[in-house]
Amino acid sequence: MGLDKDFGIAIGSLKKGKRNLITDVKGVKVGHVTLNDGNIKTGVTAVLPHEGNIFKEKVMASSCVINGFGKSMGILQIEELGTIETPIIMTNTLSVGTAATGLVKYMLEQNEDIGSTTGTVNCVVTECNDGRLNDIRGLHVKEEHVLEAIKNASEDFEEGAVGSGTGMVCYSIKGGIGSSSRIVELDNKEYTLGAIVMSNFGSLKDLIIGGDKAGERIYNNQQQEKDKGSIIMIIATDIPLSERQLKRVSKRAVIGLGRTGSYLGNGSGDICISFTTANILKHYSDTNIVSMKMLDDEAIDQVFRAAAEAVEESIISSMYHAETTVGINGNTRESLRDLL
Amino acid sequence: MGLDKDFGIAIGSLKKGKRNLITDVKGVKVGHVTLNDGNIKTGVTAVLPHEGNIFKEKVMASSCVINGFGKSMGILQIEELGTIETPIIMTNTLSVGTAATGLVKYMLEQNEDIGSTTGTVNCVVTECNDGRLNDIRGLHVKEEHVLEAIKNASEDFEEGAVGSGTGMVCYSIKGGIGSSSRIVELDNKEYTLGAIVMSNFGSLKDLIIGGDKAGERIYNNQQQEKDKGSIIMIIATDIPLSERQLKRVSKRAVIGLGRTGSYLGNGSGDICISFTTANILKHYSDTNIVSMKMLDDEAIDQVFRAAAEAVEESIISSMYHAETTVGINGNTRESLRDLL
Amino acid sequence: MGLDKDFGIAIGSLKKGKRNLITDVKGVKVGHVTLNDGNIKTGVTAVLPHEGNIFKEKVMASSCVINGFGKSMGILQIEELGTIETPIIMTNTLSVGTAATGLVKYMLEQNEDIGSTTGTVNCVVTECNDGRLNDIRGLHVKEEHVLEAIKNASEDFEEGAVGSGTGMVCYSIKGGIGSSSRIVELDNKEYTLGAIVMSNFGSLKDLIIGGDKAGERIYNNQQQEKDKGSIIMIIATDIPLSERQLKRVSKRAVIGLGRTGSYLGNGSGDICISFTTANILKHYSDTNIVSMKMLDDEAIDQVFRAAAEAVEESIISSMYHAETTVGINGNTRESLRDLL
Amino acid sequence: MGLDKDFGIAIGSLKKGKRNLITDVKGVKVGHVTLNDGNIKTGVTAVLPHEGNIFKEKVMASSCVINGFGKSMGILQIEELGTIETPIIMTNTLSVGTAATGLVKYMLEQNEDIGSTTGTVNCVVTECNDGRLNDIRGLHVKEEHVLEAIKNASEDFEEGAVGSGTGMVCYSIKGGIGSSSRIVELDNKEYTLGAIVMSNFGSLKDLIIGGDKAGERIYNNQQQEKDKGSIIMIIATDIPLSERQLKRVSKRAVIGLGRTGSYLGNGSGDICISFTTANILKHYSDTNIVSMKMLDDEAIDQVFRAAAEAVEESIISSMYHAETTVGINGNTRESLRDLL
Repeated sequence: MGLDKDFGIAIGSLKKGKRNLITDVKGVKVGHVTLNDGNIKTGVTAVLPHEGNIFKEKVMASSCVINGFGKSMGILQIEELGTIETPIIMTNTLSVGTAATGLVKYMLEQNEDIGSTTGTVNCVVTECNDGRLNDIRGLHVKEEHVLEAIKNASEDFEEGAVGSGTGMVCYSIKGGIGSSSRIVELDNKEYTLGAIVMSNFGSLKDLIIGGDKAGERIYNNQQQEKDKGSIIMIIATDIPLSERQLKRVSKRAVIGLGRTGSYLGNGSGDICISFTTANILKHYSDTNIVSMKMLDDEAIDQVFRAAAEAVEESIISSMYHAETTVGINGNTRESLRDLL
Repeated sequence: MGLDKDFGIAIGSLKKGKRNLITDVKGVKVGHVTLNDGNIKTGVTAVLPHEGNIFKEKVMASSCVINGFGKSMGILQIEELGTIETPIIMTNTLSVGTAATGLVKYMLEQNEDIGSTTGTVNCVVTECNDGRLNDIRGLHVKEEHVLEAIKNASEDFEEGAVGSGTGMVCYSIKGGIGSSSRIVELDNKEYTLGAIVMSNFGSLKDLIIGGDKAGERIYNNQQQEKDKGSIIMIIATDIPLSERQLKRVSKRAVIGLGRTGSYLGNGSGDICISFTTANILKHYSDTNIVSMKMLDDEAIDQVFRAAAEAVEESIISSMYHAETTVGINGNTRESLRDLL
Repeated sequence: MGLDKDFGIAIGSLKKGKRNLITDVKGVKVGHVTLNDGNIKTGVTAVLPHEGNIFKEKVMASSCVINGFGKSMGILQIEELGTIETPIIMTNTLSVGTAATGLVKYMLEQNEDIGSTTGTVNCVVTECNDGRLNDIRGLHVKEEHVLEAIKNASEDFEEGAVGSGTGMVCYSIKGGIGSSSRIVELDNKEYTLGAIVMSNFGSLKDLIIGGDKAGERIYNNQQQEKDKGSIIMIIATDIPLSERQLKRVSKRAVIGLGRTGSYLGNGSGDICISFTTANILKHYSDTNIVSMKMLDDEAIDQVFRAAAEAVEESIISSMYHAETTVGINGNTRESLRDLL
Repeated sequence: MGLDKDFGIAIGSLKKGKRNLITDVKGVKVGHVTLNDGNIKTGVTAVLPHEGNIFKEKVMASSCVINGFGKSMGILQIEELGTIETPIIMTNTLSVGTAATGLVKYMLEQNEDIGSTTGTVNCVVTECNDGRLNDIRGLHVKEEHVLEAIKNASEDFEEGAVGSGTGMVCYSIKGGIGSSSRIVELDNKEYTLGAIVMSNFGSLKDLIIGGDKAGERIYNNQQQEKDKGSIIMIIATDIPLSERQLKRVSKRAVIGLGRTGSYLGNGSGDICISFTTANILKHYSDTNIVSMKMLDDEAIDQVFRAAAEAVEESIISSMYHAETTVGINGNTRESLRDLL
């Protein structure tokens, strides 16, 4: 939903999609598993690029490692082959391995050919460190949570302290999952670009909301802490883009990120992955040469603006929707709405 | 000088250097040649990394091509070898070749070994397109202007519509050369980081000054135009950094750039080059193994902040110091101070 | 051991280390767990960069993704921070997740601060697809195998169809683990560079052994198959190199690889990771600024030659030491020695 | 023409094009200006991607900087925008600036819109250091030589010590310009891939010709010298490839290079640029969304093989066709044919 109108803050100037969620891009679905029990504040969020068999019909994709202090899996092959062939999983840093195994099992179940008559599969698993609220050393995410998150995927989904965002901390207060979308017109036709983020970075003093340096007002020295989080930003669109263009779009995520106050702190693994549903690459192609569509780069500026705006709003939305959370060792992170 | 106090806008929170210029980094000098005559609105600006023979004593360096819609020379070798071995030249896009030849001649004159007993030399020449005010097709920059700019280099230098900035346009109004510096304390010692930019990008509506969305107020539709400029950002420091760390610093220039309102438009070649005077690599080394110093990455956050602030202030300063300019075809670009 | 003298083939011209193994680099150890039972032909191999606490005393590192059709974990952070902070694990593609979780548990056990008072940990887990001989869909690698492989690490270790190499196929015949080393003299002192590979790529027809196009002679059409493997190449050295220089060395692995006949087939994830034990970066540094040593790039050519030779010999050695193996579905891969 | 049959050496196994030159790719033309007079041993070679207006109808392109110890211009924008919009110029290192200015003037003359109603132009100028035979400090290449080379372009062109190859030295003997082509069948249709190189790297001892370690036999210690050259490799094709795929193809040039004996010496700037004539991107597009064709990556292996073979043969051909040359200071470089 992004930000409510009654929040009184508008981010950017472009038109928003119907739900103001990444799922405004037709076919995209998001599912959560939330693990919230005492010291356990973690979970899994799955982003499904389309409703079909993703391994057989891959979406064209690219990424940008803005700051590589991170442990995400699957980026290398996205860059080489320009495709995503699994749901994109988000979870906590130390659970990437378990989530990957869960995702492998899901993919094997869906595709009898993987590892037998065809090659293997490139699992995309992304992460942030939720150890400030979650007992991350306890490794509470299990393989089955990945399957469950995938099963839960739908066009409507919650934002805030849910799924993999349950234990995340953004700008020293409660972060989590946020999403937003924008409409772009090309050749007299409307296209959609949406973003979803898992936010877990920043110091409160730096926070900017829609251009307002709110952090400077509301922070106190007590809340000040080192920026050692991370952020995962996923951009989906139905605009036809080539792999190179998807990389260019991924690189603009940093603008949305910077607008909320980030200076790309050392400890923050800042990664953006972008995909388009407009160019599907089949695992088994009938022909050697295939057709695709791309954008004239002269028309890409509004796509860049849409990416920056959707990412900026997603980040603020992740905080806007998150409830105050008490986690491990009694660590408490306030909700942005409570603070304002 | 960056921004005057009477401008009433403070950018960032870190302490500034004595001059608030890139030349606060000991040894760094900047020189201009301004070509301003009717339709001719262009020039050359030279940044000297230190006072000695730069080819014989190279500075450690790295860069970041934020948006590669640009024609700068010398970046490939900076990345491979981690050094800069010539003054850094800034000029207009179509004069890169001529400036490179001028720089080659200067380097040959200074170094009899180049091209005879040792290898060649990697000329660093950067550019923006000043064709909106300058008769860029006239190719008015001559080889000798490069030598002159180098000769003019000093610790004090002008900002605004001077040197290579003479014909540049930033946020639809008059841009040019801007500079600023910040102080960082490490191991109880003060170090300096300075930036200089040649600004030539953006649309007025997007302009943000110190967090204030000034562009939205002062733009009118007449001034609106496509973002097809570029920006060159050069960061100098005396902080010991490795090549990898200089790349990390270069990547943070985008934060300063974004804070002024940029979304990294398609047509804007956004490039940052960073160097440190703390690690000198000799062209003729007595030993195979050499010592250097670097930073513990855990302490790099304040360097990132300094880079972001110095770049942001440099951009605003480039506009703040630029005079209203009437160029080719009567094209006029107002000064920021006149507009505000 | 690399290649025996009685094999009659010498690779390269540089002097070899005492063991002709990566463990000639002081402190480096290698351990295997071999899973070889019917359809199960897989395992884990661990490379320990030094004998101390690797998380607390990280080795300086870099990598090169020669062909990114691969699923290795941990590369992004190596590139950003220039360090390795865990043992390097090699296993089969679908077991990367499980191995990562095993490695996480090992690191948590060794370091109480991870995930509590300090950040998380960047697990380096690399992979090749052993599905031609191994029941890879069965996911037979378990978390404890990682701990076991680490425990098994020693200076002497086996090559061929062992550890993670148990089910690997190289140039259509039996591949696996191979290793070799070279001596380089700098400033009148001897240094060592060693390599270890997990080989799983290529078509027999292309195989070149020490310059001899053996594959053309010994292949028959029956053995011809698509190149859909991968190769992991790890280079260790005690030569002082910067992160940039370690990247340059990593890029030369392709020369060793190409000399054995590879043309970097689409399906082969070709990745090289290099580290030096000469620059240790402490997790908890007493000072912000630290000293390190690097090489004058003018002296790096022999390091490049050493890297190319050690990788080339490691690949041939991986085949030379591998026994003929009968795997899943009765698939058989002959030993190179049997074939010659 | 590549290698004559009576040379007795066949490189690779794929079918060659009609001319065995890069100009077998329809529309591609090559022109030389040779400056050969006493100490002057240099020149210019131009590669035209097609016969039309290249600025208005750009070819899709990508590149690979295999070793960045080089001073080529124009690579940054090729990577960002995926296009080439000028002829590709090859010359000596210190003449890059002059050649760029010559190329700018040619482009301005051909296109009245550049620098006035549209943006500027990305000149692609590549280089090697011919200072071992040429008075490179004399800067003998003039702007008009670029125009002349472009005018001279035709489907038939000479190889060896001509054009920009006049003063080049490869494997310590005479190098220069070489070219070759290969045929690839896709979807039952024949496509062509061609290469052209400017060779200027290596030490004689390392030279391998078609798998034969000829260098070891024919070198004597006198000829041994440090590898401080460079090589420019240009690949053209009519196979439909995306920018990402063109990058993958560019990365395979290293295989052809390595097969001739290179280990990517420190001082050798090794750069490959690839373009396809199958995807033309118009400077002024009628629509925002455009169609293109690409290859199923599963079919790309034979394109990789073709690239490796064409580059390998081009390098050997550059030496095969070069005449013994006596240059500056009486430096002499023998012809490969004289040596064998």
